[in-house]
Order: sequence, then structure tokens, then C-alpha cells
Amino acid sequence: MGNGIDAMRPIRLRMLRGLLAATGDPRCRMELAGGEAVGALQKEALATLRISDLGALFRLVIDPELQLGELYTQGRLSLEGDAVSLLEAVFRAKAGASWVGKLISRRLLGSGLDQSLAASARSAQHHYDVGNEFYELWLDERMLYTCAYFPTASTGLEEAQVAKMDHVCRKLALRPGDRVIEAGCGWGALALHMARSCGARVRAYNVSREQTLYAREQAEKQGLAERVDFIEDDYRHITGRCDAFVSVGMLEHVGLAHYGELGSVIDRCLEPEGRGLIHSIGRSRSQRVNRWIEKRIFPNARPPTLGEMMAIFEPHDFAVLDVENLRLHYAVTAEHWLRRFERNRRRVVELVGEERARTWHIYLTGTVATFRVSSMQLFQVVFTRASNDRIPRTRAHLYTDEPSGFAEHAPAWREENGAL
Amino acid sequence: MGNGIDAMRPIRLRMLRGLLAATGDPRCRMELAGGEAVGALQKEALATLRISDLGALFRLVIDPELQLGELYTQGRLSLEGDAVSLLEAVFRAKAGASWVGKLISRRLLGSGLDQSLAASARSAQHHYDVGNEFYELWLDERMLYTCAYFPTASTGLEEAQVAKMDHVCRKLALRPGDRVIEAGCGWGALALHMARSCGARVRAYNVSREQTLYAREQAEKQGLAERVDFIEDDYRHITGRCDAFVSVGMLEHVGLAHYGELGSVIDRCLEPEGRGLIHSIGRSRSQRVNRWIEKRIFPNARPPTLGEMMAIFEPHDFAVLDVENLRLHYAVTAEHWLRRFERNRRRVVELVGEERARTWHIYLTGTVATFRVSSMQLFQVVFTRASNDRIPRTRAHLYTDEPSGFAEHAPAWREENGAL
Repeated sequence: MGNGIDAMRPIRLRMLRGLLAATGDPRCRMELAGGEAVGALQKEALATLRISDLGALFRLVIDPELQLGELYTQGRLSLEGDAVSLLEAVFRAKAGASWVGKLISRRLLGSGLDQSLAASARSAQHHYDVGNEFYELWLDERMLYTCAYFPTASTGLEEAQVAKMDHVCRKLALRPGDRVIEAGCGWGALALHMARSCGARVRAYNVSREQTLYAREQAEKQGLAERVDFIEDDYRHITGRCDAFVSVGMLEHVGLAHYGELGSVIDRCLEPEGRGLIHSIGRSRSQRVNRWIEKRIFPNARPPTLGEMMAIFEPHDFAVLDVENLRLHYAVTAEHWLRRFERNRRRVVELVGEERARTWHIYLTGTVATFRVSSMQLFQVVFTRASNDRIPRTRAHLYTDEPSGFAEHAPAWREENGAL
Repeated sequence: MGNGIDAMRPIRLRMLRGLLAATGDPRCRMELAGGEAVGALQKEALATLRISDLGALFRLVIDPELQLGELYTQGRLSLEGDAVSLLEAVFRAKAGASWVGKLISRRLLGSGLDQSLAASARSAQHHYDVGNEFYELWLDERMLYTCAYFPTASTGLEEAQVAKMDHVCRKLALRPGDRVIEAGCGWGALALHMARSCGARVRAYNVSREQTLYAREQAEKQGLAERVDFIEDDYRHITGRCDAFVSVGMLEHVGLAHYGELGSVIDRCLEPEGRGLIHSIGRSRSQRVNRWIEKRIFPNARPPTLGEMMAIFEPHDFAVLDVENLRLHYAVTAEHWLRRFERNRRRVVELVGEERARTWHIYLTGTVATFRVSSMQLFQVVFTRASNDRIPRTRAHLYTDEPSGFAEHAPAWREENGAL
């Protein structure tokens, strides 16, 4: 030091290079503030990762999964350029070389998650009670915080969320007067849509007080309070019977150990000819969520594989009729959210503070990248009791003006085909 | 006896009544030849079950699952009237009250099935090498022995089998020049269709010699021998790479324990952007097949639940894109087969003898009933590597003239949605 030689320089360089290699050598520049830089030239890099201090670099090298989000939130890490593409490259590299990660995540599978009633309420509180105005700044006007459905290249977010709700209603073949139970209804958009567009009578459950109050207010405003009942309670307390059971974006929070319970709830509620739909983030192979997401964004979340989801259906002899994977629709949905979030960043900071804004910024950025690289899937599963023959002949009615085959009863199928 | 009193009469009556009760009291008449009768009046009965001797009645009471088929085959049991509806009523009753059956079948799960290479070849031999002419008497002209697809009420069997093949080709988004591997190709109809209609180059595997020879002959006749290669070998020996992997009606014979192997074969063959489709009879809950079917019709067969099927995909990180359940299409398909079989019964008997004709008659009758009452499902599962972004935006192209979304690469999705 005294003689002008910086003894730490080779160590810092080695750490930066190690970090670059460990993240799969993405086309990015990594800089330590006021010091070394490695990787691509600024003008060729997808993005530049700036690390503010040696401690931050050290943490990042030791535990990147957790520390990327932590340090970004604390402002000790910044990303300039195309952050989505950078994360995408990192995730892709990790996806390719993750047998060690797989081993570790498999060992941890299912351990430590807490989906008791109290914890479920706390988790929802943690995530959704941040204040409705916050979500209004980057969700669509109807406040749907789940994957939208983009039928064409030019569909915008508002339109795509309506298209998603219509898609769900068609899959459920809702008819006027149908009694619907919704488990986990968010701010109530789908429940209100089903009542307004299909004439359904809906009982919608949610453990978040903020959301329930918001939803009830919407029902009043829209003159739908007679037809939609928003109930602040856990899905395990659902009572009554229904012609359709729907749950969009709740299963992620249910936890594998409780799928049997969810199946029992559905079995208790669904009429013999009732239809059901569960829409959930999922996985192509069994894995826990990123530890930082679990710690800061979605405590106790666990997106299932399709195989894991069957623990809801098979014990109760529900027959799965249709599964659709909408993964890339989620990537586009999250991209809309991220752009809106960035456009409204100043107001976001006023509302929730710089730190929380940074948390959400990196979370939304990571979500886009995650769905692009297929770390996550999005499953819509349609089911009915195996004994129900009132099922559609084909799925053409989802895409054309043909009437839903649900109206034709199986004996009709037979009569039609009787003259064999 | 000597004094004119038949001491056995109350016992016979009790056995008949017991049988009636055990089968759920279907609207049928049960008669013991030259003796007692119970159940509905002849004119009100769906069907009349005639039992030829006391020994047959005894066997039926002790073990109906196995003995119904055995005794029918031996001519010691006959069914007059609407046999399908009678079996349907019996199966429905059993489905409702089968917790004992479930317990037993669960205990037996997976035990004793033999899907070694030699056994697989023997099983196929047993079933398919009965002679091609036999199947020509009741299958469609292209010899498809799998569930057809009836887009409308008026679709006939020939048309529905072509519609099924087109549906599969669209799901696989086949393009001219695509290399396809087919595992378990039957008499080759799908392989030939893919080559002719889509311009694909197909390598199709089958362990049945009779079928392979027949398929090769068809390829020659149709001038497709250059584009379709029929290989007499087990799916475990499949080599080479492909743009699409397809298997229609083979998985039932693979056996749960070998799903991992099948997944490895696909993983070895499928290009990074390759698509796959597996079409299989399935279950809504885990169960073995009926013991008589296993003994006489499909040795070593085991239709999986959707959850069980995931053992093929999840270990290799394949993402399931689409699942369609075509259960009622199988009921209609089997009904066509049954009617054709009945129309050609005389020729069937000439070919395979009365006993074998009876075996097949009761098997086809039971198949219609089985799919009607939802004991069986029919799953078509479309999958790809999770890392493949070249997936369709929606499934509209399966039902309309819209081009398949497969042509659009994910980056195009992004650019389209770039102006968010």
C-alpha cells in the first residue's frame, strides 16, 4: 500500500472473473466501483453489472441466488442496459449446467415450507397488502396479477387479461345461473367478469383483507354485489356446492403437502356435472423457487410440476380433460408489468420507498427472464369428475364460434353416432 | 330329490340373487339354463344373461372379473339384448362401490407385469399376430387400432381415423422434410400418412412381424417406401435423431417401470427444437387393467394416469405443452369396431374359430362400456424440451386455418410485443 502497490487487486480481479465464469460467461461487463472491470466491452455488453464494494462482490460470489436480489435492493448492485437479457443468459447457462443445483434442490425439496392457515394469511399479507395503489401502477386496469392470454401478436395487456378471463370462462363452459366457487380471487376481476359476462353467481375466497375490500368495492361500483360474494377466508374453509370451481394463481401458494386437502375441498363442492379449472405457475421438473424470491417476494411459494398437480385430482377420481401450457404468455405479461413499473418508477418510490422499489424492479426483471428461459411453466388444467359424460367433443369451441360441446350430453353423442 | 323336492333350488336362487346384487342390480334378467331366473322381466331388461350350468354360476359368483370373459368365451354364458348397456350399468355400479376393489388393485399395483424385451415381443405376438385379415374385418380400411377423432356428430370411422392422424400431425406441426421417429406403428397407417400428407421422412418401429410386413407392403404399394422405413424392433433400440417423436397406442404396453427408459430414448433422439406426442389409453386414478383383459387380450398392459405418464417427461426436463382427453371418442370408436365385428361375425368365426370370436366379441363389448363409464381415459400429450421456445402461441391452428404458431420463433414473439 505504502509503496503504491495494491495487494488486493489480483484477488478482486479473480473474484470478478470467478463470478463471470460461474454465471456462464454472459455477454456482460462486471465492474467493481472505482476499480476493476471484467467481461465484454461496454458497447458490446448486453448490460453492465456494477458492484459498489468488495463486501458485495464477496457475498455475490458466495451465494448469488440469494444475494443478487438482496444487494440490488440495498443499492449495492446496479444493472445498466438490457437487464432482462442478461438475467436470461445467466439463467440459461445455469439451466444447462445445474446438476449440482438439481442435487441440492432435490435434497431441500418440500422441506421448511409452511402453509398452515396462519402462515398462508401472513404470506398473502406480505405480498398483497403492500397497498392497492402500488399494484395499480403496473398491473392492468382490472388488476389481474396472473398470466394474461395474447391471442395475437398485437394484443395489448388490458385486452389480453380480458382474453384470459374469456378463455377461462369458455373452458369452464359457464352458463347463466351457474354457481361458481373461486379459490384465491385476487382483486376480484375474474369473479366480476364471470358474473357480468356469463351471468354466473360467484362466491370468491381470498385471505388478503386489502384485496377483499377492494373487490367488494368494485362489485358495488359495477352493480354486481348481488351476484358476487367476496369472502375473506382460506380455501380450506370453502363450503357450499358449485357448478364450476376455479382457481387462478393460488396453487403456487398452497404447497405440495396440501394438494390432497385442496382436492377434498373440490370434491366436497363440485356437482356431479361440474367443471373445474386450476391455473398455476408450474415447473417442467420438480424444483423449489429461487431462495431470494422465497425470502422477499413469495414466502412459502412452490410452483408444482404437472405430475405433482395430479395429487389434487387422482385421489378423488377427477378426470383431467385439458392442459394448456402458456409459458411464453407469462413472459410477455411480465414484460408489460416491468415496462409499466419502469414508466411509473418515481411514483412507486414515493409510495413504497427506494428499497422496496428496487426489490420489485429486480423481481419483475427476473420474472420475465425466468419465463423466457423456461425455468417456469404456466399450466391451465381443466377437469371434471370422471363419471361426468357432459364433456365437450372437441376444443374447437375455444377457438371458433362453434357452440361448446358441453351442452351435448354423452347419450346424445351416442344417438348421433347410433347409425353406425 | 327322490321325493320331488329340489334341495338345490334355494341355493341356486340365492347365488343368482347374490350375483345380481354384487353387480349393482342392473336392469337385467339372469337365467340359469333350464332353471331359475331373477331380476327384471324379459321385456323390461336391458339384456338377459344366460348361464349354462351351475358350475358356471359358481365361478361367476366367486370371481366375476375374470370369469365373465372366460365363461363367455367357452359359451357357458350368453348375453342377449343390449350387452353394452348392461356392462355399462355393471361397471358404473362397481365404480361407485369399489373401495374394496381399489384396495385390492392398489395392493397388486405394478406387481407381476413383465415388460422385458422378450415378453414385449410375445405380448405383441399374442395380440397382433392373430392375422391381418381378422383385423381387416372390423377396423377401418387403413387398419388403425387406436382411438379415432370425431370432429362432428356425422363423422364416420374411416373419416375419423384420418381426422385423428391429421390432428396428430397438426399437434406435431410437421413440415416437409421433417424426420419423424414413430414408436409402435401398428400396421403403419400414421407413418404413411405423415409421409404422404406432410412430406415427412419416417422411421417407424414395431415388434410385431406380421404388422411390419404388412406396413412395408403398404409403403411399396403407395410408393412411399423411399420415405418410410418400417423397422422390426423394440422402442428401446431406437437410434438416430428426429424433429418429431410420436407414439400412438404403444405406451399401454410399456409398463410404468420402463417410462424412464422411454424418456431416455426420446431424450437421445429429439432435436433441440423437436416436438413429441404420446397418445395412450389412461386412467383417472391408478389401477391395473381388468384381470381377464390382461390374461386373454393384452398381457402386460397398463394404462397410466396422467401423473404416472410424467415419469417419462419430468426427469428429462421435457415441458408438456398440451394434454387432450379423448375418452368419449374411444367409446364411439370401439362402438364402430363392435358393430363391424358383429356384421362380419360369420367370417370371423371361419377365420379364428367360435371360441376366439366369442373372446373378441365380449372384449369389444366391454371396451365400449369401459370408455363410456370412464374407467379408461385417452390422453394425447404434446411435449418439447423445456428449453425450446419455438412453441405455438395458441392452439387455434388445430381448429382453424390459422398457421401453426410453431413457425414463429420466440424472439419474434418478443419483437412483436416489443412496443409495449
